[in-house]
Amino acid sequence: MDRGAVVRITDVAALAGVSPSTVSKALNDTGSLRESTRARVREAADRLGFVPDASARSLSARRSFTVGLLSTDSAGRFSLPVVLGAENALVGGELSALLATARHDPVREQHHVRALVARRVDGIIVTGRTTEPREPIKVPMPVVYAFAPSSDPDDASVVPDDALGMRLLVEHLVGLGRRRIAYVGGRAEQAASLVRYVTLAAELAARDLAVVGEPLYGDWSEQWGRRAVEQILAGGLGSGSGSGSEKRDLPVDAIVFASDQLARGGCDRLRERGLRVPDDVAVTGYDDWDVMSLASRPPLTTVDMQLERLGQRAAELLIAAIEGDPARGVERLAPRLVVRASTLGDG
Amino acid sequence: MDRGAVVRITDVAALAGVSPSTVSKALNDTGSLRESTRARVREAADRLGFVPDASARSLSARRSFTVGLLSTDSAGRFSLPVVLGAENALVGGELSALLATARHDPVREQHHVRALVARRVDGIIVTGRTTEPREPIKVPMPVVYAFAPSSDPDDASVVPDDALGMRLLVEHLVGLGRRRIAYVGGRAEQAASLVRYVTLAAELAARDLAVVGEPLYGDWSEQWGRRAVEQILAGGLGSGSGSGSEKRDLPVDAIVFASDQLARGGCDRLRERGLRVPDDVAVTGYDDWDVMSLASRPPLTTVDMQLERLGQRAAELLIAAIEGDPARGVERLAPRLVVRASTLGDG
Repeated sequence: MDRGAVVRITDVAALAGVSPSTVSKALNDTGSLRESTRARVREAADRLGFVPDASARSLSARRSFTVGLLSTDSAGRFSLPVVLGAENALVGGELSALLATARHDPVREQHHVRALVARRVDGIIVTGRTTEPREPIKVPMPVVYAFAPSSDPDDASVVPDDALGMRLLVEHLVGLGRRRIAYVGGRAEQAASLVRYVTLAAELAARDLAVVGEPLYGDWSEQWGRRAVEQILAGGLGSGSGSGSEKRDLPVDAIVFASDQLARGGCDRLRERGLRVPDDVAVTGYDDWDVMSLASRPPLTTVDMQLERLGQRAAELLIAAIEGDPARGVERLAPRLVVRASTLGDG
Repeated sequence: MDRGAVVRITDVAALAGVSPSTVSKALNDTGSLRESTRARVREAADRLGFVPDASARSLSARRSFTVGLLSTDSAGRFSLPVVLGAENALVGGELSALLATARHDPVREQHHVRALVARRVDGIIVTGRTTEPREPIKVPMPVVYAFAPSSDPDDASVVPDDALGMRLLVEHLVGLGRRRIAYVGGRAEQAASLVRYVTLAAELAARDLAVVGEPLYGDWSEQWGRRAVEQILAGGLGSGSGSGSEKRDLPVDAIVFASDQLARGGCDRLRERGLRVPDDVAVTGYDDWDVMSLASRPPLTTVDMQLERLGQRAAELLIAAIEGDPARGVERLAPRLVVRASTLGDG
């Protein structure tokens, strides 16, 4: 590689035959200079490949034009798109993004927070692994929480609107004529499992329908999706029997899974039991994680939480806060229904 | 949130009743001060939560203590662990990581490179989406390429040792008595498909064995893994018939897939055809991507490329280069064989 030293302002000044302060004025379009001088300086800067030192801008503006992206997620499944969306928006705003991944380690997070403060970042975006509320960080600059909201309602947070996502799924399934709908969640104590169930139950109730049986909770694996289907087919759904009163062969005509992984496992087991998706049982997922939703047989109708858009929105709120216009409270970002063959069939 | 202003060195000086330069000496353990003065300053700094401005260190060292992480991978499947490993090692070295994701867009990459130069980063780690060599970037600071090597052999690159990974798989399969081994790659033109095949063929030849049939290339999807199994079972493997001379029911006793996604699809189709993995056909994957390798039925014997370790190593090489000890050429990082039920069974 052809690697020279960093080109300095004095190099440009020497080539153009002017003083360094004239170079600065010429490149920043300030001061009173002859146009021919400005042109000569610009040409010299171009020829040398001079890139102005960003710290000059920082010193004059008393800002670092740098934002911290603090992530607690090592796997990155959910926080990665949020981080990418935020980085994209920050770059558009001429800001740089300092990455800091804490991996569920409070000591490491504290270390990162101190380092970001020492760097005098203009603000921090905090992302999480789940949508559970988290303790706020204490720093002397604006903070926006993305995906995992702050437990302090006065802080600014952006989260996916899970209730809306489930409403979209219910409208879709009921519109297709499905009436006997069961629910399979992930871990019972997590917001992603609970909010989706509560909304499903409320939306069905608003249509004089009810969830078939009790909600089934387990973990977030495909294996649990398969096992849950066994329980549903065996009728092991608890005491409730849903709204259908006549006896049928199958206890359900649709299963709403709280994630694409669960739904994919569910589709596999339904097929292995000789049932057709969606003809016999329609299936929905959640997340639109392509390696699950597209690889599933059939591909999944699901909800895209728009995580990149969520990261972008967090960056927009942070930039506004840095410029003196902070937001407060939780903003819910609308998700998008993605319809595929697991509810509509191939036709 | 309780958000004060940034605590400044003058605040600490006022509380401790000393000058700012005394605060600096006390906290940096320089100069000659009475121990009681040092203790008083430290107590004042602790009480106020003072964090020294990192730019002071930069000014005195003429370094930014910041490294750029330039990624061309939007999906993050391979570059994410590399980035995390690098970030981890950089933080350990008291460096900060500026994230810059270019998403296969040369204009965007150029913009990022200029921004990193403007920030006067001490060095840059460049990661890629695949192991194909890439054009080097031209910047006046050290660069290390991770996962995707630079096309300039004088640059420093760290890549996974795919040939060693395949050697480990062949030793394992042959050690288990498998002799009729077929190969299923991803895209035909990609290094990951080709290197793994060439090594497989060479390793088998060294043992007086041969790959059964022609290598099968397609894409990197589970669907292709399933289709490839159909072709193998139909005997559509080209002219070569491997080393087994007697006629058997199955043309193979093992299939080496170039990725976990392919292998997972392959296991599904073998099972759907009533064949047992590994009793009838052993299966191996590559990548140890948990949502594929663990969710596969059965779980996959595969190769872990140690991507986090690879990112760490890139950071170590970059730190050495920044400190005046640059490396040259391509360093290959040893992968790890991970043995699971797709070759060993449940026993």
